[in-house]
Amino acid sequence: MNTIDVLKNRRSIRSYKKDQIDSNDLQKILEAGTYAPTGMNRQSPVIVVIQDKATIEKLSKINAKIMNSDTDPFYGAPTLIVVFADSNCSTYIEDGSLVIGNLLNAAASLGIGSCWIHRAKETFFTDEGKALMKKWGLGENYIGIGNCILGYADKQYETKPRKDGYIIMADEL
Amino acid sequence: MNTIDVLKNRRSIRSYKKDQIDSNDLQKILEAGTYAPTGMNRQSPVIVVIQDKATIEKLSKINAKIMNSDTDPFYGAPTLIVVFADSNCSTYIEDGSLVIGNLLNAAASLGIGSCWIHRAKETFFTDEGKALMKKWGLGENYIGIGNCILGYADKQYETKPRKDGYIIMADEL
Repeated sequence: MNTIDVLKNRRSIRSYKKDQIDSNDLQKILEAGTYAPTGMNRQSPVIVVIQDKATIEKLSKINAKIMNSDTDPFYGAPTLIVVFADSNCSTYIEDGSLVIGNLLNAAASLGIGSCWIHRAKETFFTDEGKALMKKWGLGENYIGIGNCILGYADKQYETKPRKDGYIIMADEL
Repeated sequence: MNTIDVLKNRRSIRSYKKDQIDSNDLQKILEAGTYAPTGMNRQSPVIVVIQDKATIEKLSKINAKIMNSDTDPFYGAPTLIVVFADSNCSTYIEDGSLVIGNLLNAAASLGIGSCWIHRAKETFFTDEGKALMKKWGLGENYIGIGNCILGYADKQYETKPRKDGYIIMADEL
């Protein structure tokens, strides 16, 4: 599939098989993530990869609590990536978002399902979240931009229609 | 080139030929942009495409003034895309960023150069910027997320090395 088709056909996957994803594919996805553009090439983001079930469960519970839910916000995905970015860089939210975008698209190109899950910021403002960041060597200047779950899709998803007026062709002045 | 290679080899281009980009390719790039994921599929962004030289020049001057410069921040690129997003959606910055990411990657896959140029937010807070938004039918709830310039590269760029510690593999709890 060419890249345009990958970008158009990628879908957010919310149902996963239990199998762990191929480790070579994971490395390709991560590397693609690091090549996302960042403001002034400051490379403000950091990508944390979690495959330990207990850690994923812990983060799932914190995330669910933030939205007053008792479901698993990570939909049982076997790999959880958290992208942080250094808030000392003014472009940190955009930088981190582009890294996640590359992870999602790289995964799609390899037949691996993915979904951006929000509330990373709030998760790593909690005491439990801060303790994990410390364990990973991340100072408090790093802010959670988003979670990216990865796994093999357990279900097919239709592409939803795009809204009217998404693209505006500007006239002359 | 497969998608992983496109994502890894895309570079921010800062020198352009004068030729306008192919209009079929532009449509493919724009469509790929609209398929970026958005929080809750709210599709909060809007993509404005500008090829009118006078409008590009006007926006270039506003952008330059914001950074106290008299250079052209758009590097002479023949196509300027401004991505806005609806600030009523909590995920609007991330949504708009992912749209720009798709535009950049789609362009790279078609051999078209691109670069994210910042200061869209500040540009469309000016009176001149607000007048253009009004002309395009955009209310003040729309905030400029970024500019994406497009054109044929006039120069080759080397891929720069990635920083150490970009990827952290988390241990068990």
